[in-house]
Amino acid sequence: MRKNFGAKTYIYPQPVLIIGTYNENGKANAMNAAWGGICGADRVMVELGSHQTTDNIAETKAFTIAIADEANVVACDYVGIASGRDVPDKMEKAGFTTVKSEFVNAPVINELPITLECELESVDKGMYIGKIVNVSVDEKYLGEDGEPDLVKFNPITFDPVHHTYIALGDTVGKAFADGKKLF
Amino acid sequence: MRKNFGAKTYIYPQPVLIIGTYNENGKANAMNAAWGGICGADRVMVELGSHQTTDNIAETKAFTIAIADEANVVACDYVGIASGRDVPDKMEKAGFTTVKSEFVNAPVINELPITLECELESVDKGMYIGKIVNVSVDEKYLGEDGEPDLVKFNPITFDPVHHTYIALGDTVGKAFADGKKLF
Repeated sequence: MRKNFGAKTYIYPQPVLIIGTYNENGKANAMNAAWGGICGADRVMVELGSHQTTDNIAETKAFTIAIADEANVVACDYVGIASGRDVPDKMEKAGFTTVKSEFVNAPVINELPITLECELESVDKGMYIGKIVNVSVDEKYLGEDGEPDLVKFNPITFDPVHHTYIALGDTVGKAFADGKKLF
Repeated sequence: MRKNFGAKTYIYPQPVLIIGTYNENGKANAMNAAWGGICGADRVMVELGSHQTTDNIAETKAFTIAIADEANVVACDYVGIASGRDVPDKMEKAGFTTVKSEFVNAPVINELPITLECELESVDKGMYIGKIVNVSVDEKYLGEDGEPDLVKFNPITFDPVHHTYIALGDTVGKAFADGKKLF
């Protein structure tokens, strides 16, 4: 038997995306968003509502998306509940420092492992589509193959029901491979 | 120091979404997609390219999105690498059985724990936006609070770099709460 819940946002897992922007004076801000995902080979979508972040994107036409990780869970949650409109020193309180992206007019948060640097492509019904221009990764999170290594950093996920953050666990399969058992 | 990777789809975690559709004869199909996410309080986005699934959605204007889980990792990978255009008995080979959604013209896969039942809202550049009409959950995956319980099922995630499937791990934080430590 299945239970019907109506229209709910029960996708598992949801990412925890930290959106970085500059205001018109070049001051960095960050917010936390769980509604988003990749939508093309060089495109990413995030739903943002109305925030200091969306005011900033209207000015700069650019944003970054950093991947929240276990080591920064408190700061990542903080930037989701404090507003840049109300707290001028939000980034300092979060303990986040930034450098300007080499590629777009938006800040890279030094403390977070992976950042997608995006130009705004379009906005529709609160959905911000970014063209991914570059992904930068702190070298200390790279494995021997030169790629991001999930042994070295732990992205967190958002449980849309219980509002917890959950770390990743064991590798349980190989994509484009395990299914061949059924051929 | 950060390393630049160019335009990559390095969002962590990515979900593993099993898209269910009917063809014009009411035959069920399923495919595996990792590019998608929630994009509004009752909306979900998934990037689908060109497949039997997209032919089907063009006919039915509806689809389901089931959450892939550890118990079904082989079948979920299989439906991502076998094409419904080439393999008429794809669902049988996957071991998936279906019932018609009570809400939309698309199949619910009985073996998967959670299904978002969607009407097609729009298509743009391969991005399919669905209006979530209902979410149904197999009751055996519900906790004492009547909600989906991550102790009872284990959604898998997709590593976009190493193409592995990864289970969820420990709860490491509380959203809208942990950040208050910094107020």
